[in-house]
Amino acid sequence: MEAVITDLFYWVSIALMICIHAGFLAYEVGASRSKNVLAAAMKNLLTFSVVCATFFFFGWWFYNAFYQFPVGAIDTATAALPWSDDMGPNNSSVTGIFWGAFALFAATTGSILSGAVLERIRTSAFLILTTVLGSVVWIIGAAWAWHGSGWLLTEWGWHDFGAAGCVHLIAGAFTLGVLINLGPRIGRFVDGKAITIPPHNLPLTMLGLMLIFVGFFGFLMGCVVYTNTGYFSIFGNQTTLSAVAFSTLMGLAGGILGAYVSSKGEPFWTISGGLAGVISVAPGMDLYHPALAFIIAVAGGLLIPYFGKAIEKFGIDDVVGAVAVHGGCAAFGIVVSGFVLWGYPNVAGYPDINPLGQIGGFVVLALLGFLPGYVLSLALKKAKMLRIPAAVELAGLDLSEVPATPYPEGIPVTILKSDTEVTA
Amino acid sequence: MEAVITDLFYWVSIALMICIHAGFLAYEVGASRSKNVLAAAMKNLLTFSVVCATFFFFGWWFYNAFYQFPVGAIDTATAALPWSDDMGPNNSSVTGIFWGAFALFAATTGSILSGAVLERIRTSAFLILTTVLGSVVWIIGAAWAWHGSGWLLTEWGWHDFGAAGCVHLIAGAFTLGVLINLGPRIGRFVDGKAITIPPHNLPLTMLGLMLIFVGFFGFLMGCVVYTNTGYFSIFGNQTTLSAVAFSTLMGLAGGILGAYVSSKGEPFWTISGGLAGVISVAPGMDLYHPALAFIIAVAGGLLIPYFGKAIEKFGIDDVVGAVAVHGGCAAFGIVVSGFVLWGYPNVAGYPDINPLGQIGGFVVLALLGFLPGYVLSLALKKAKMLRIPAAVELAGLDLSEVPATPYPEGIPVTILKSDTEVTA
Amino acid sequence: MEAVITDLFYWVSIALMICIHAGFLAYEVGASRSKNVLAAAMKNLLTFSVVCATFFFFGWWFYNAFYQFPVGAIDTATAALPWSDDMGPNNSSVTGIFWGAFALFAATTGSILSGAVLERIRTSAFLILTTVLGSVVWIIGAAWAWHGSGWLLTEWGWHDFGAAGCVHLIAGAFTLGVLINLGPRIGRFVDGKAITIPPHNLPLTMLGLMLIFVGFFGFLMGCVVYTNTGYFSIFGNQTTLSAVAFSTLMGLAGGILGAYVSSKGEPFWTISGGLAGVISVAPGMDLYHPALAFIIAVAGGLLIPYFGKAIEKFGIDDVVGAVAVHGGCAAFGIVVSGFVLWGYPNVAGYPDINPLGQIGGFVVLALLGFLPGYVLSLALKKAKMLRIPAAVELAGLDLSEVPATPYPEGIPVTILKSDTEVTA
Repeated sequence: MEAVITDLFYWVSIALMICIHAGFLAYEVGASRSKNVLAAAMKNLLTFSVVCATFFFFGWWFYNAFYQFPVGAIDTATAALPWSDDMGPNNSSVTGIFWGAFALFAATTGSILSGAVLERIRTSAFLILTTVLGSVVWIIGAAWAWHGSGWLLTEWGWHDFGAAGCVHLIAGAFTLGVLINLGPRIGRFVDGKAITIPPHNLPLTMLGLMLIFVGFFGFLMGCVVYTNTGYFSIFGNQTTLSAVAFSTLMGLAGGILGAYVSSKGEPFWTISGGLAGVISVAPGMDLYHPALAFIIAVAGGLLIPYFGKAIEKFGIDDVVGAVAVHGGCAAFGIVVSGFVLWGYPNVAGYPDINPLGQIGGFVVLALLGFLPGYVLSLALKKAKMLRIPAAVELAGLDLSEVPATPYPEGIPVTILKSDTEVTA
Repeated sequence: MEAVITDLFYWVSIALMICIHAGFLAYEVGASRSKNVLAAAMKNLLTFSVVCATFFFFGWWFYNAFYQFPVGAIDTATAALPWSDDMGPNNSSVTGIFWGAFALFAATTGSILSGAVLERIRTSAFLILTTVLGSVVWIIGAAWAWHGSGWLLTEWGWHDFGAAGCVHLIAGAFTLGVLINLGPRIGRFVDGKAITIPPHNLPLTMLGLMLIFVGFFGFLMGCVVYTNTGYFSIFGNQTTLSAVAFSTLMGLAGGILGAYVSSKGEPFWTISGGLAGVISVAPGMDLYHPALAFIIAVAGGLLIPYFGKAIEKFGIDDVVGAVAVHGGCAAFGIVVSGFVLWGYPNVAGYPDINPLGQIGGFVVLALLGFLPGYVLSLALKKAKMLRIPAAVELAGLDLSEVPATPYPEGIPVTILKSDTEVTA
Repeated sequence: MEAVITDLFYWVSIALMICIHAGFLAYEVGASRSKNVLAAAMKNLLTFSVVCATFFFFGWWFYNAFYQFPVGAIDTATAALPWSDDMGPNNSSVTGIFWGAFALFAATTGSILSGAVLERIRTSAFLILTTVLGSVVWIIGAAWAWHGSGWLLTEWGWHDFGAAGCVHLIAGAFTLGVLINLGPRIGRFVDGKAITIPPHNLPLTMLGLMLIFVGFFGFLMGCVVYTNTGYFSIFGNQTTLSAVAFSTLMGLAGGILGAYVSSKGEPFWTISGGLAGVISVAPGMDLYHPALAFIIAVAGGLLIPYFGKAIEKFGIDDVVGAVAVHGGCAAFGIVVSGFVLWGYPNVAGYPDINPLGQIGGFVVLALLGFLPGYVLSLALKKAKMLRIPAAVELAGLDLSEVPATPYPEGIPVTILKSDTEVTA
């Protein structure tokens, strides 16, 4: 019966995570200017599709092959090769459901990148970058830092319940590397001064984020190991969904409140505070007391507008604040967890959780994310494949890339029956 | 294994209930005029955050301390104090998951209020009111009327499977109390004549309601007690999710059809009929035959436009019809259940379900909701803290409260590639 | 405990399927022109309500009575009559939860029709058609082709895990029959040349489709039989949710990529490719290898723009491509499955899966869908009850049918606080 409920458990996790992608579509479409709306939506759809497919054909294998450093388990990873029996409709296997949950994590990393680079990246370059991030880079990070035998755990005592390191930090760092080479949108910086380019439909963006919050509950289910006798983190310590529910809700609440205060009520930062809060508490959300989770989340929320300003100072244009929210809060949360959880015992005689292990892991994963993003986007830039021509950018991507138009009538004033009766 | 599945059960309940809040955001944003869109969204986010946090720090304690009348179990409620072991990440406890489901109920009461008072309330006053409603008033009502040892059950034979009394009725009555002191929006009544102020984006409001319907399935999971051997209502009688599925779907269908007929196809009332139907059948949805649930739901749906008109007659401006839908249908459903379920036995020798008990409970809960809402908002009014200045209201709240703008370009007519080719 | 988890399993399935209807509302509203927005939304709400209610009163009985050909089990179907004990809140029964899942399938067939006939059908005619489709026609198809003792299985070896035949094919064929008699919207064909009438809000339509994808995970849960010892298809062969997760995600990914290529990046076809992919693999998604599912899904996605063009060639106006996507891909998927799964053994000595059985089943179900749709809509046309008058169509349905207006202000340019400060 354990396999039966395991199948159900991660199936629900996957279904809820599809909400993340529904949410990202609304979020990115809303965050674009009206001239780039459909190009944003198409990028989003392609991210999901390309990452899903490549994650089947080679991504999943990395997780199973690379958990020792630098490699070393390649021979035992044959069950994750696409032609393995386990990777088919095997009646006794739950591989597909684990693969599915990981594939949705992979697609999430791709979507984190996709929002930041909106409105000026070439689709072809983007698809190369998103495939490398979603089906190679992050999953190597997951093998190292989010695996019951990953070397960061076995050697350094690393703990990261909610995948802050391998998903959010790696995606944020990779994105930062890409943004440096991609450059800002035309008009984003004028005479060295940052000019805000507002979303064309902020309510749609906010609805998108709320759907991402729904999806978070699927994501966090994907962070526990279900057994009939209890829940365990990926790192082997016992936990409960109760503990995770406490931290998640207090994380959402604290992050929103923190960001509300420090952004002085700016809606985009405030709602992003919900992400910030959950990401900030993610490393220890199986272990934190709810009040502590709340405090850490408030701090994470408070920080993001400053992270955003700091990135802007370097002339970097991150359309949705992905580096600040995902990268910044993951870094903050990981470092904090090292001190707060200092001395908490790991299983199987692995080193206790400790600040040096957490900070070391942070550095390793930040580099693992940043370097491929930077190098690959630099190569694409040199090959003049990274960015669309300025004329296309000014006219809007939809006009040259997409054989359709989002609002052919605009949203006009519509007339009420009784109005016409009065007129008549 | 029971604790494991219990954790899973309410986790899914919580995840689905997040859809309620995604839905409320879309619903309230759509229901505002375009000048108040972001202020509405911010209120929504703050409701969720403030209620969640305060419900941890003191709300949950009320439920555990106040189920006898007026108090009497304070000594046994220590496990619900924020520093209790049970309120932390305890590996054997499912407290967090129960707390989480209740916290989402609490946030729902706050969101019921938040829609009704749109476009003219001060944020600070609103946050005080929503905290009192979400983390004090309704949860005292839940202790009395939605607890296995609540005094309304043990003394009067009260039955209210789906929390119509403690959530919908209390929130509706509290809202009514606030609306009386808050007063209508400028222009809503001219020379004593009611003028409809239409939502700026009715499709968005309708999508929001559909997401709330999704969330209802989480809410109703939160109304059963899971055990490995069967489901029970909060009141201890056995039931099944099958029974609840029948009533919920027939409630949605019946309510929509009823409201469609009586509103002559008005979309806002028609889709609100789905809420009306489910709320009307909520008290007995574990016990009603589906055909009976359908009939009660049709009646509930039929009634709401009349409830709305009645409230309007008193010069009260309820932006989203919250008092009519939540308060009105809960009252209707509770009274009906007293007659329909008359004589159905309660557990443990408590009095049978009976009309007097249901009507008495209705009166108690209506007062429990109305009085604090009225008194507190009156005090805020006297202190000139309740309502924004008329000039701000006329200019729109976004302009003075929110450092952002929802539609900086409007939604303009966008051009299709082939159109430009034709032109060129 | 099996009944307890069974209840939970299909409850979650139902909750997720409500997302399909939230999605369809956004999808159809977006696909309309701004003058028909609310009429589209109302049709959607009424579909859900009318089908749910009638499916209780008679629809479910057909499934239980008609699985032999042409009838023959009417005497054993008494448990599905509305006054049966099983159709009430029976504490030992899981009937309600099965009924609920089927009722949501039924509502889905109605919604497939509803998108195609937008912007010119009479509401009364539509409600008759949708009731016949949702509570009679498709469920007879389900009795024949999606039942453990259905005659297509027992006689011909039919296999159709994901209800491609009874839901998608029947709904698509019925819709085709209706569209022939309904005729195209005014202006859709000018001098025999097809003119595209674009959606007024394509981003909203795309968000709607994403929500439908979320709902698909509920739909596919409704396609397995849960037992504590393992999952089975409706046809009795063992399977796992792992197998279905593989096929579903590879189906979504493949379909989107296929449609992207063949539509040259047209957003509506591309995102519809997700539907196309899942429907194309649906008949064998319990048995296909994920790589095979991917290939079939790519093919299904590639085909839909061609299906769409072919239908257009006949002067048929299908607003949302329902016939192409649902009908076309179901036909394609069923035929393909006959060859790919040729020889796979069925349970209980029923014939093996074979191409003739699958093609024969396709013909039977296509006719079962097409004929009632065609005949009934012809009768309604003759009675002049099918289509709204041309003047109403030109002015927009909202103006004559709906006492409300979707965008009373349009979506205007909104002003930012700092803009006014600069101006002042």
